Amino acid sequence: MSNRKVIFHIDELGKWPLLLGNIANLRGAAAEDVFEIEALANAEAVLGYAAGSNAVDQVAMGRLADEGVRFVACRNAMNGNHVTNDQLLPFVTTVPAGVLELADKQLQGYAYIKP
Amino acid sequence: MSNRKVIFHIDELGKWPLLLGNIANLRGAAAEDVFEIEALANAEAVLGYAAGSNAVDQVAMGRLADEGVRFVACRNAMNGNHVTNDQLLPFVTTVPAGVLELADKQLQGYAYIKP
Amino acid sequence: MSNRKVIFHIDELGKWPLLLGNIANLRGAAAEDVFEIEALANAEAVLGYAAGSNAVDQVAMGRLADEGVRFVACRNAMNGNHVTNDQLLPFVTTVPAGVLELADKQLQGYAYIKP
Repeated sequence: MSNRKVIFHIDELGKWPLLLGNIANLRGAAAEDVFEIEALANAEAVLGYAAGSNAVDQVAMGRLADEGVRFVACRNAMNGNHVTNDQLLPFVTTVPAGVLELADKQLQGYAYIKP
Repeated sequence: MSNRKVIFHIDELGKWPLLLGNIANLRGAAAEDVFEIEALANAEAVLGYAAGSNAVDQVAMGRLADEGVRFVACRNAMNGNHVTNDQLLPFVTTVPAGVLELADKQLQGYAYIKP
Repeated sequence: MSNRKVIFHIDELGKWPLLLGNIANLRGAAAEDVFEIEALANAEAVLGYAAGSNAVDQVAMGRLADEGVRFVACRNAMNGNHVTNDQLLPFVTTVPAGVLELADKQLQGYAYIKP
């Protein structure tokens, strides 16, 4: 099967290790397939995108980004958690509302996984 | 895009503030679109529908209901948590089994979000 | 409606009682319909599949398995949590990667529920 698409949802900071492990497992299991993977962080989980955060292995995150995984932050959550664009890791992109992204991606055929 | 549909799932009482914030963000981001939004509560989360509960801002919930958001309670969970129909906020509706509602709505094209 | 399909996702050991209750409620509500139900456990939740675990009512789990519910374990998670094939309850089957199973089942039309 080709062109499978998955969006992972994270809203708890402590779930980042589990989430990155899930993504690595998905890539390992489906290595030869075309697979689009996005991680969408809202609520406090956006703190893991701030450079220097200890909540997540940002080297491992960067490696997954290099391999094509999209890491996306909710701007509502950034505002609520005082995370600025300047603080974000360079590969992180933003959307105005994380929940709208979660809805739209599913309506475009993405599977949804919440670790 | 029009006629997008989302079902939010909540089964932990402490998640109500996050859930209502998520719904407000979704409405704010998609204000000009037709959007059907349902919040389905099962397990202990149904306690947030009992009038007078301190677990959730029921004024904010009522405002979202006025705007068309559907708040739905699982009757199995009401029985298990000793919540009667009389105690429910006036805008809350019920379904026999929350998990059946979650399944059927997705099979009807709703996106699923679990805060 | 016939041939409805649902995949339940569990990755926290403490959620097993809620998950089994959810499945029992789904079966009770949809008794006369054709319904395919799978429970996919990854991360620490696979410990509930080890014979003798106190984290879950394995008699109730076995009864649901007898009724056709599929209980599936992620082998990555088994390795990470030192659960061997020999320890698994007899009705449990395995997949190489739980997240791939969650994605593929949704892409095949399954609804996703995360208690």
